[in-house]
Amino acid sequence: MIRGNWFTEALEQRTAFSVRYGDTLFDENSTFQRVQIFESEAMGRVLILGGCFMVTEKDSFIYHEMLVHPAMAVVREPRKVLVIGGGDGVTVTEIVRYAGVESVILCEIDPLVVSACRAHLPKVSAGLSDPRVTVVNEDGAAFVARFQHEFDVILVDSTDPVGPGVALYETSFYESVRRGLRSGGAAVVQTESPLFMEDTFSSSVSNLGSVFGEGRCRPYLATIPSYPGALWSFTFCSEDMAPVLEAPESIPPQLEKELSYYSAEVHRAAFALPVFVRRLLRK
Amino acid sequence: MIRGNWFTEALEQRTAFSVRYGDTLFDENSTFQRVQIFESEAMGRVLILGGCFMVTEKDSFIYHEMLVHPAMAVVREPRKVLVIGGGDGVTVTEIVRYAGVESVILCEIDPLVVSACRAHLPKVSAGLSDPRVTVVNEDGAAFVARFQHEFDVILVDSTDPVGPGVALYETSFYESVRRGLRSGGAAVVQTESPLFMEDTFSSSVSNLGSVFGEGRCRPYLATIPSYPGALWSFTFCSEDMAPVLEAPESIPPQLEKELSYYSAEVHRAAFALPVFVRRLLRK
Repeated sequence: MIRGNWFTEALEQRTAFSVRYGDTLFDENSTFQRVQIFESEAMGRVLILGGCFMVTEKDSFIYHEMLVHPAMAVVREPRKVLVIGGGDGVTVTEIVRYAGVESVILCEIDPLVVSACRAHLPKVSAGLSDPRVTVVNEDGAAFVARFQHEFDVILVDSTDPVGPGVALYETSFYESVRRGLRSGGAAVVQTESPLFMEDTFSSSVSNLGSVFGEGRCRPYLATIPSYPGALWSFTFCSEDMAPVLEAPESIPPQLEKELSYYSAEVHRAAFALPVFVRRLLRK
Repeated sequence: MIRGNWFTEALEQRTAFSVRYGDTLFDENSTFQRVQIFESEAMGRVLILGGCFMVTEKDSFIYHEMLVHPAMAVVREPRKVLVIGGGDGVTVTEIVRYAGVESVILCEIDPLVVSACRAHLPKVSAGLSDPRVTVVNEDGAAFVARFQHEFDVILVDSTDPVGPGVALYETSFYESVRRGLRSGGAAVVQTESPLFMEDTFSSSVSNLGSVFGEGRCRPYLATIPSYPGALWSFTFCSEDMAPVLEAPESIPPQLEKELSYYSAEVHRAAFALPVFVRRLLRK
């Protein structure tokens, strides 16, 4: 039925998403995981980490705009930003669109991800070359634990809770993230699919709530076709800032021109949760 | 890598979604298409028409709630409803939740779809047995052309624009739908994925606009993991009713208890289109 070379990510041997690919641009093993980049007609260049789709040129604008811009819009004049995970550089590329940002630290445990993406995903990883960006290759949980009241925005751009990603789902890590934020700051954590990984979603949001305080963690959603379940969640966490009430009515015109998914209207809409998602949060 | 029996729907030999299945409950060819129903762990029972996922017990609540409830909420006291396509009965099952509905005509060209779903998807097709529902097996485009100012709500629950679905993407069909609506009525047409089938999406919305009038057709979105591209569109068409301005602030409490996706808040949010979708509409 299906011809040619296909890359398939199967979720628990129950469902699978496949992309037909042409050239393999990169395929090496690091200490942590297998890192693959290939060229595909449907999705453009595709980054696979440990057998899972991470970035595709076709749809990654959705994930990365929705990880970055809600927090950047709500926090007043964000200057110092920390990204944990996200060695592909796409998150950083979104952050450096803001002229007011003074420094971005990208803490990616696996240097091979960074070098492979610099070489083979130059467009979407371009932000890595911005002079305000510092890349450190350390364990994200250990790194963030060193800071107190340091960052305006912290973004947790983790892989799934397997392999090197496990530490980024622990309550002690969330506690470090909270302590790393300055007053008026916000963190956003990717919290998996509420449809296909409902347990991970519920427990992550619940654990974040126990750290930041009741009502201070608000999940929001976007559609990422290349991720299992497609309906994907992020959780906005802040001790002071409410993500909908304090969202601006509009975004800067220059930014509006550059983006493909996010707008002030999309920001508000993303926090309107389908009924079954609200029910998961009540458990 | 992947074990057991998998059913795969490939989109233009470029991407594919697969579900591992157990028992085959039904597999026959009608005059129009192959009709398959199987049992799967991940998605529950699954209906495949002509090789494409149509209904899964896991995620079809999203598609069907979002096809039905926005129009039912905006139109005042809808009494007569026409569904074109949707022989699986899931759309009808959503419609008969409204006590005020007096009659529902389901016009499905393929009687095999209806009988297979009655037998093997009894829960989600239960509405087919409601005494207010009449099933007619005719060509939907020819059927609706017989009516003028007859229906409060018309829902176009079509397959993709291949095989028996082709006629349901033609402007002459949209013209018949417009004439079939009474004053104050509304139609909703499923208009494919703006991410993976952008040409079909753009041309459908544009053709609907040329029939109903500029500004009288408003696309809205939901995430359907089992459909290609996952980000799925519906277009709300009405000569008199604005889908957001005239949407009620809340829905009846009984309905709220029964639904799993749709709410008044989700209604409004679904019409907030990502930037790239707005750009497709300007072409």
